[in-house]
Amino acid sequence: MGTHGTHVCGRLCVSCPNVLVLESGAMMTPMSLGEFDLIERYFWRPAGVGPKRAIVGNGDDCAVIAPQSGMQLAVSTDTMVEGRHFLSTVDPVRLGHKALATNLSDLAACGAKPLAFTLALTLPRVEEAWLEAFAHGLLQLADEHDCELIGGDTTAGPLSIGITVMGEVPVGGALLRSGAKPGDEVWVSGYPGEARLALEAFRGTLHPSLPADAFDAVRLAMECPTPRVALGQGLRGIATSAIDISDGLLGDLGHILKRSGVGVALNLDALPVSPHLKPRSLELMQDCVLAGGDDYELLFTAAPDRRAQVQQLEQDVGLMLTCIGRIEAERGVRLFNQGQPGANRWASFDHFKGAA
Amino acid sequence: MGTHGTHVCGRLCVSCPNVLVLESGAMMTPMSLGEFDLIERYFWRPAGVGPKRAIVGNGDDCAVIAPQSGMQLAVSTDTMVEGRHFLSTVDPVRLGHKALATNLSDLAACGAKPLAFTLALTLPRVEEAWLEAFAHGLLQLADEHDCELIGGDTTAGPLSIGITVMGEVPVGGALLRSGAKPGDEVWVSGYPGEARLALEAFRGTLHPSLPADAFDAVRLAMECPTPRVALGQGLRGIATSAIDISDGLLGDLGHILKRSGVGVALNLDALPVSPHLKPRSLELMQDCVLAGGDDYELLFTAAPDRRAQVQQLEQDVGLMLTCIGRIEAERGVRLFNQGQPGANRWASFDHFKGAA
Repeated sequence: MGTHGTHVCGRLCVSCPNVLVLESGAMMTPMSLGEFDLIERYFWRPAGVGPKRAIVGNGDDCAVIAPQSGMQLAVSTDTMVEGRHFLSTVDPVRLGHKALATNLSDLAACGAKPLAFTLALTLPRVEEAWLEAFAHGLLQLADEHDCELIGGDTTAGPLSIGITVMGEVPVGGALLRSGAKPGDEVWVSGYPGEARLALEAFRGTLHPSLPADAFDAVRLAMECPTPRVALGQGLRGIATSAIDISDGLLGDLGHILKRSGVGVALNLDALPVSPHLKPRSLELMQDCVLAGGDDYELLFTAAPDRRAQVQQLEQDVGLMLTCIGRIEAERGVRLFNQGQPGANRWASFDHFKGAA
Repeated sequence: MGTHGTHVCGRLCVSCPNVLVLESGAMMTPMSLGEFDLIERYFWRPAGVGPKRAIVGNGDDCAVIAPQSGMQLAVSTDTMVEGRHFLSTVDPVRLGHKALATNLSDLAACGAKPLAFTLALTLPRVEEAWLEAFAHGLLQLADEHDCELIGGDTTAGPLSIGITVMGEVPVGGALLRSGAKPGDEVWVSGYPGEARLALEAFRGTLHPSLPADAFDAVRLAMECPTPRVALGQGLRGIATSAIDISDGLLGDLGHILKRSGVGVALNLDALPVSPHLKPRSLELMQDCVLAGGDDYELLFTAAPDRRAQVQQLEQDVGLMLTCIGRIEAERGVRLFNQGQPGANRWASFDHFKGAA
């Protein structure tokens, strides 16, 4: 954080109207600071409320934390910008949730246990109702994962939300993208593709349009994704590689293939298909599942003799895990349908090139 | 970071023109991803170049780091927004420097040794020359302090720079704002006020205007501040409290007073006055020094019997340290000039209220 928990123009602001001109004898009086003190109310909680990881918490120049003995720190950062990652009309409770969820998803993909996070909030103005709702969504998910908000910086400007999350993994135990081996099975959690279906519904490209209940469900998947934190930690020692699906299944699988120096045979008929996607065209269904993104399901690889453990984990975390293919030594992506080779309509997918 | 080192619309973008409409059968092809791969070139360096703290570095879902045994992690985050914290015309080399410098300054104020940082860069467009210069300024300072860039996220949007920095401090050794005791001397490093003088020069409020060489010098102080990292570490075990001056000397001192539950007697005639401020009016000089901000000098308190150690440290780090007052049990701020009580023209300073 800056020198205090939240500030709008604590540092010299080159254009801040609240910085009065010196020659008048008036001081740099950030007149909106009172307003921004409000923010503090929503995010900084009294001792005893919420998780308590910080040795030195909010309000000093730095927060001080320490991973437990034998643990390493996993760190990830993500920014969400209005109009790009979310619509201005989104429910701020869901926005607060999602801003942290996408970061927790990165920890999950490493098998890390969440510890703490910092929040950099850029706001065009202070709206109490919005802030309260945003903080509610954010802190509710934080509490659920025992992840403490240890620092922040609030700035006036176009709405964006930056979070850096820290978690812990046993020394050498982080799940990486680079460990996939020929023969490994490729697994995916849940139903990727729903977020993309929601986006297309928002865009009005679906004919016929989605029934109201289906729209609500896929909209929830897009606006309020569930980070697969328990699954990620459960995969330690089981998975040979893992990634979260933020860019789309094929794109993210491409990162694993590239990093691991391997290829894949993927069974299109084995893809998990959300009940909301089943009624749509085969093309749309496959496009959403394979290239949708923004779902934050986990994609991972594991040796075939780990299948029983994977299936036990499926029970333990209560989340469907589907085997969709197999890693091969030959690089590139080969698609199969009912055992027959199929054309790869997604070969142009940009991330993909690196893997081919 | 997201699922790859840099992405412009890796996650579903609600308005990204590069996300093609699905029904055409075309995929979510972020056409500018090629452009954004450029960014990677400027920031992610091959192994062996720059410091190497990350156990798992850029390019996986998380970076993994570990503080040394017996050390805790100090974490701080800061965002800079164009038009608010910097002018669009600023030299990008200096901007890259300053973005990290303000964060390193927070570590310095805690007495922490820099370890690593993450970068969240929001850019309206990709300009290679700008990026190269920005990365140069950023990474040069990072290398100087052996601080590794371990993760990042690049997004398209209004220009802003978010950095979260991590450092290490011995267990229980962090310098806090809360430790000032009655009788402690109050010290400040360097010449606070130069950044504010530069801002007033930019605003054209100075009559007469600054000579060219003075303008260059104070502009450097504003655009390219030096974080007092060595001083901060040197103050471990000596200072009872510390803060960096980002909001102005009086405002930041107010944070120490409030947290420590004490007051201060400040000697206006003891203030260090930059040679560039000396020729200006007394009012302007005092305003800049006491309420200027954006200087990133350190303000700290130490018991009087530590004076010899403070003076030794002054020699060791090659940075002027000036005793400007004394902590008192009675709360509030009392100003003195040549031993005579003076009026506090800065009493309206907002942060200050909490301390009074």
